[in-house]
Amino acid sequence: MKKIGFLGPVATFTDIAVRGLFPEDRAIPQATIPACLDSLANDEIDLAVVPIENALEGSVNITLDYLVHEALYPIVGEMTIPIRQHLLIHHSQKLEDIQTVYSHSHAIAQCHRFLHSTLKAVELVNMTSTAAAAKYVSDHPDEKVAAIANALAAEEYQLTIAHQDIHDYSHNHTRFIVVAKQDCHLKTAQKSKGYKTTVMVSLPDDRAGALHQVLSAFSWRNLNLSKIESRPMKTGLGNYFFIIDIDQKIDDVLIPGVKAELEALGCKVQILGSYPSYQLGKIEELTHK
Amino acid sequence: MKKIGFLGPVATFTDIAVRGLFPEDRAIPQATIPACLDSLANDEIDLAVVPIENALEGSVNITLDYLVHEALYPIVGEMTIPIRQHLLIHHSQKLEDIQTVYSHSHAIAQCHRFLHSTLKAVELVNMTSTAAAAKYVSDHPDEKVAAIANALAAEEYQLTIAHQDIHDYSHNHTRFIVVAKQDCHLKTAQKSKGYKTTVMVSLPDDRAGALHQVLSAFSWRNLNLSKIESRPMKTGLGNYFFIIDIDQKIDDVLIPGVKAELEALGCKVQILGSYPSYQLGKIEELTHK
Repeated sequence: MKKIGFLGPVATFTDIAVRGLFPEDRAIPQATIPACLDSLANDEIDLAVVPIENALEGSVNITLDYLVHEALYPIVGEMTIPIRQHLLIHHSQKLEDIQTVYSHSHAIAQCHRFLHSTLKAVELVNMTSTAAAAKYVSDHPDEKVAAIANALAAEEYQLTIAHQDIHDYSHNHTRFIVVAKQDCHLKTAQKSKGYKTTVMVSLPDDRAGALHQVLSAFSWRNLNLSKIESRPMKTGLGNYFFIIDIDQKIDDVLIPGVKAELEALGCKVQILGSYPSYQLGKIEELTHK
Repeated sequence: MKKIGFLGPVATFTDIAVRGLFPEDRAIPQATIPACLDSLANDEIDLAVVPIENALEGSVNITLDYLVHEALYPIVGEMTIPIRQHLLIHHSQKLEDIQTVYSHSHAIAQCHRFLHSTLKAVELVNMTSTAAAAKYVSDHPDEKVAAIANALAAEEYQLTIAHQDIHDYSHNHTRFIVVAKQDCHLKTAQKSKGYKTTVMVSLPDDRAGALHQVLSAFSWRNLNLSKIESRPMKTGLGNYFFIIDIDQKIDDVLIPGVKAELEALGCKVQILGSYPSYQLGKIEELTHK
């Protein structure tokens, strides 16, 4: 049984990713993303699961900053889960009586249309996480309050789902990465949907067309890119690096060829990982050991 | 005097951007990013200031989603401010007595190294914002507590800066955009450092090299790109659009030429705005009217 550190508290979206991938292992909530990756560095956990894209809870930038600036631990897997928000109430309360809705500010923002059309007169109160909001509702059965949170929080805090799927955009997903101290082959409860390779490229200068030249190296090899993002280098404004996701496993010829060519052109190239990609369809029925 | 809606509460980083740009106008805090842009839609405010990159408080994705999916209001300005975090205490307390530190979870993560080296034994408690943490410390002068927040919060809640600049990365910046209902020329207290044009491009298909082809149109015209980011279309996994920042004002020939060419190739192209760029060096000495 492995020890899996994740961005807590219990019943966050990161927790859903952990339960989906590692239902048999021991999940250990961590307070922040750096704390989670530090636990990996100190061998207190075997794997770290942290958000990397489109996150509700943690800042994705903090994840990238740690991997790029602190310790280049390899990404050994990724998990994509749908963002589904529900309105949760205590079973002793009725939906029409609700006067206050608690949640994380981003979750409130994600359910803006529903709140404006269906629950117009309610007061909205920010909490530190969707899980904390669900806990509050569970702890205060006599108050006319509801929480916006995920289905795992409903289960964890024994709340009723009064309204399902109240988020504004139905195709919104969050992506998490699994980080290990050394590259390894994951044993997960899910079947992988394919492979990805994540590469960090920093350009030698800012001149127009440098990125275009970098992408040529991928393009003429028919390497499909599923993501590209520029990020400031933190050495001052104007210096950027790029995070590029390639839609395949690292091979012996093509990707090493790109790396060698870009390095010859003066770029710095680092492979952050080549890993299986998992997707979760349903977020119910997930349990820790 | 204009009415400026911003992502509140008072003394957030967004508030700093507002005070830097519009010290003479009336700043009106809003609970969420969609609420802020809705206020603009309903003519309750004249301008909206919301985070667009590297944000501590709001989700940048929520800003982009609103502009792309709800209402294509033009970006009329941008403001970049440095992320500086300080340790704030009540003047009646001493730093060596502090037992608990309150802040937003992202701010706690941003000061991870300082907290691990200098304040090892303290308890860390998440709050809904850095401003809320500062308010808590101000309201509880007898408790041995500190807050991580910005200099504006220190001023607003009359707290002492016990440790200045405790954030891990010194070149971290946050970018905010000013959104209006119609394109307009901003009157601000800052001198602009240049112009940017933001373009949204969606590709006709996912084939390898499509992005490379798109960038060619910019590259051979010597249009320098300061940012490129891929974002899912929300019509399902695998459909992406790109947000591209060009480092100049829109002209009559080059940028319209790119747009026409890309549209002829089957891309959808939308100019989100062409606007002056402001940078704040110091974040002290900023006041609302």
